[in-house]
Amino acid sequence: MIKRPRRKAEETREDILSMAEMLFRERGYLAVSIADIAGALHMSPANVFKHFHSKVALIDAIAGRHLDNATERFAAFEQDLPPKEQLLRFVLRLLEGHLQDIQKNPYIFEMVLSTIEAKLDAGNRYRARIEQKLGEIIREGIVEGRYQCRDPESAARTVADVLACVLHPILIARDDKETLVHRAEDIVGFVDAALQNNAC
Amino acid sequence: MIKRPRRKAEETREDILSMAEMLFRERGYLAVSIADIAGALHMSPANVFKHFHSKVALIDAIAGRHLDNATERFAAFEQDLPPKEQLLRFVLRLLEGHLQDIQKNPYIFEMVLSTIEAKLDAGNRYRARIEQKLGEIIREGIVEGRYQCRDPESAARTVADVLACVLHPILIARDDKETLVHRAEDIVGFVDAALQNNAC
Repeated sequence: MIKRPRRKAEETREDILSMAEMLFRERGYLAVSIADIAGALHMSPANVFKHFHSKVALIDAIAGRHLDNATERFAAFEQDLPPKEQLLRFVLRLLEGHLQDIQKNPYIFEMVLSTIEAKLDAGNRYRARIEQKLGEIIREGIVEGRYQCRDPESAARTVADVLACVLHPILIARDDKETLVHRAEDIVGFVDAALQNNAC
Repeated sequence: MIKRPRRKAEETREDILSMAEMLFRERGYLAVSIADIAGALHMSPANVFKHFHSKVALIDAIAGRHLDNATERFAAFEQDLPPKEQLLRFVLRLLEGHLQDIQKNPYIFEMVLSTIEAKLDAGNRYRARIEQKLGEIIREGIVEGRYQCRDPESAARTVADVLACVLHPILIARDDKETLVHRAEDIVGFVDAALQNNAC
């Protein structure tokens, strides 16, 4: 009895997110208002507003629901894979995932554009997970004696930065996959060479 | 007498560009139409259209007029500066220039966003000049025996790619200058280490 109202609120929240996602996909992020989402759910706009104070907050929650669950992108690699190969596979996994996100949800592009200055929490959490995974691979490379690196965390941050040109949705949306994969290979080669040479 | 009409056409073209730039700056790129620009110049929209077939073409010409003349960004460095120092100074010069462009012309941000898939010629030319300058610095490093590199052109392309996170207007607009300068230093350190270690 006590749990019921909270359960209900969570369900309502999920309903709003699913409807918003569907409408954004159909009509585009800019064209859909909070009132449209409320109307499609036969709710009052005030009720939607109680859960999400802005369209940016909605986008953050949709992105979070998607990115926080993208665990397959961060799964472990088979043992004894050299760190360079792990880096490449990780980058190509992310690249593939991001291209699919853009293709399946064209509104993501519009959304990233409109919210680029909002620094979404979901984006920050996703970026932190990428840095963490990169840090793990770099630390493995240090243990194996392949990488020279005093500060693996700072190295992971720099590697995440340089990967923007093959991972950031804005920068990859206009290039074809073959070009991007080739670019990713070149950059991973660069990163591997830098990490071997005491870059950090 | 023969040259007069051509001269006139070039002047008209410049007048259109200057007026467009001023109106974009005042009201934003999306809010200003070709008809607005024509009206402000007491011209017919058809006359503007004769020179520029779209707003994207106008933006390309404005960006070209600005970027093609940004020669100070590509000026030579004092002699005997180590290649790492040259790379850093070049990157910081570009970063400074791009931050100024964004600050002076906020419409540039909106414009880059709206034309990101158009692959503007002006942007391609600018990128080619950046790669060329990077290639020169890398070749100097090879001659001095500091860099190991079989393919300086491919290396210059990869370096330009990894610099996106400190040079691309979309990626730098939301960060403060101090953060960006620090990031640029880390990346140049990485690039220098990679180029020393046969990354290309």
